[in-house]
Amino acid sequence: MSTAEIDKLRIKVDEIDLKLRDMLNERAGLVKDISRLKKVHGLPSFDPIREREMLNHIADNNEGPFETGTLQHIFKEIFKAGLELQENDHRKALLV
Amino acid sequence: MSTAEIDKLRIKVDEIDLKLRDMLNERAGLVKDISRLKKVHGLPSFDPIREREMLNHIADNNEGPFETGTLQHIFKEIFKAGLELQENDHRKALLV
Repeated sequence: MSTAEIDKLRIKVDEIDLKLRDMLNERAGLVKDISRLKKVHGLPSFDPIREREMLNHIADNNEGPFETGTLQHIFKEIFKAGLELQENDHRKALLV
Repeated sequence: MSTAEIDKLRIKVDEIDLKLRDMLNERAGLVKDISRLKKVHGLPSFDPIREREMLNHIADNNEGPFETGTLQHIFKEIFKAGLELQENDHRKALLV
């Protein structure tokens, strides 16, 4: 067995990472659109009930190997980043 | 404009979240395979040079809206979760 096998698996990891990045950006775009609509409707940007629903959705039928708690921890970071993006957007809007 | 538009966008977010979850689990499976091969070759499980390469890879051609720093922060959490998964695997192996 050679380390060439490791290199082959690493290429697959790199491919997944680019897909994850692009999907995270796609998600961020949707979050920005939702944020703008929420503003129009006078709804708050943070909705703890919706966040709980999203975390439950991730837990449903999770086949691992990541445990649900680990995945939810990662997703909480994604949600936080999305919220920061919305806040930056609002700040920029106020500066115009 | 109604909040139905928000609901429509939320369905898209939910679809992305499931894809992200499944892709994170696929990545975790690969990380576990790499970890086993590394053990065979007597290589350390944490490789800071490889981690830097992965972070640079994510930065290349990032089209946003997430800033590169934000994405790298999320990916560091993903790497950390992968490392914890490897460590749990090794601990279990020692207990057998």
